[in-house]
Amino acid sequence: MSPRRKLSDARRRQILRAAVQVIAEKGLCDTGIKDVADQAGTSPALVIYYFGKKDILLAEALSFADEGFYAQTADAVAKMSSARDRLVELVRSACSVGEAEDDFDEWVLWLDLWARAPRDPDVARDRQAMDRRWRSTITEIVRQGQEAGEFAPVDADGFAIRLGALIDGLAIQVVLHDPEVSRGVMFDLVMDTCAKELGFSWTPEDRAALTRLARRAPDGRAAG
Amino acid sequence: MSPRRKLSDARRRQILRAAVQVIAEKGLCDTGIKDVADQAGTSPALVIYYFGKKDILLAEALSFADEGFYAQTADAVAKMSSARDRLVELVRSACSVGEAEDDFDEWVLWLDLWARAPRDPDVARDRQAMDRRWRSTITEIVRQGQEAGEFAPVDADGFAIRLGALIDGLAIQVVLHDPEVSRGVMFDLVMDTCAKELGFSWTPEDRAALTRLARRAPDGRAAG
Repeated sequence: MSPRRKLSDARRRQILRAAVQVIAEKGLCDTGIKDVADQAGTSPALVIYYFGKKDILLAEALSFADEGFYAQTADAVAKMSSARDRLVELVRSACSVGEAEDDFDEWVLWLDLWARAPRDPDVARDRQAMDRRWRSTITEIVRQGQEAGEFAPVDADGFAIRLGALIDGLAIQVVLHDPEVSRGVMFDLVMDTCAKELGFSWTPEDRAALTRLARRAPDGRAAG
Repeated sequence: MSPRRKLSDARRRQILRAAVQVIAEKGLCDTGIKDVADQAGTSPALVIYYFGKKDILLAEALSFADEGFYAQTADAVAKMSSARDRLVELVRSACSVGEAEDDFDEWVLWLDLWARAPRDPDVARDRQAMDRRWRSTITEIVRQGQEAGEFAPVDADGFAIRLGALIDGLAIQVVLHDPEVSRGVMFDLVMDTCAKELGFSWTPEDRAALTRLARRAPDGRAAG
């Protein structure tokens, strides 16, 4: 990679990070390209050069955040020998249990992405690709667990669709500060569903141990 | 009720119906008060007089549609003697199985409502009230079924949160035309979850009978 290309990539990431912050705060509707450029310390012309329009900026910002999520989760998951532990880590990470509050920015962006997708084919395509990847990540872990005899022989594809939908639906409640659904409640409801459907053990002690672990993590603050 | 008040109510409904159509088509972001006024055959001043701003128009339009949903579902459900049948009808109605495609308009509006709620306390409050009502409707049927010995003794409140979230999450996929999640798939996944968790029988024959019934309904077109 040439130094020039490297610089471009760094600037691209800088713009995407700024986009996450600004859109999460103002909403896509009230976000202008100039707001993102100001936040990134660059010019509107450069933002337009890289992304064209703000809908694309939103979709790319979420894809970028998604890459980060998978990279981080893949690292954590690679160390684990059981499919059950891998699934628990995936769900914990998706529910942001034991992580800082400001991870919420990305959650809000999903609401904008969903609202924009019916009216923008580019956004719709990116959304679909991200959901496909998410479901196949779940399906893969379920199949591994079934092959190892850890999980019950449920239909892995159907399970992945339902689990993905359940997490999305609960995330909406969490991000809108529903008084009945905190991140902790979300995590518990999702884990109960997984344990029951896949037939593995998930006790209050397992939950407590996980929260303690997350509290001890270098940058982690326990949530819920 | 005075004739003047009656007229006002009719016009209010007319504006709300226009708002559903226009916002569903263009998205809240690109909808102007004037677009809604034009569609309703009235003046922007009158729309502003009634609703103030378009965020409120969106929330009121969804509350209005929600009232229609409950009135219709309450009618259908009142005739049913078993809690299982009431739950099936509630889920069928929520999934719009056996109903016309244009009911989709309201589904799209929920995406706008969710995206708007974090940035507008009025919208957030209306959203929360609608979700609370939805959950307590589910909880009530589950309790009735448990008292009648039809349903297993699960935690009704937790079940309602999960069922509501699952339906929301799947509705997102349906409304964004995800290739793997049609309204029919959504209904099947939700019914399988209900039957398994509440411990009642739900067979392919039950499903087929319901779809036949919906096809025969006066204005019904079978979906999925």
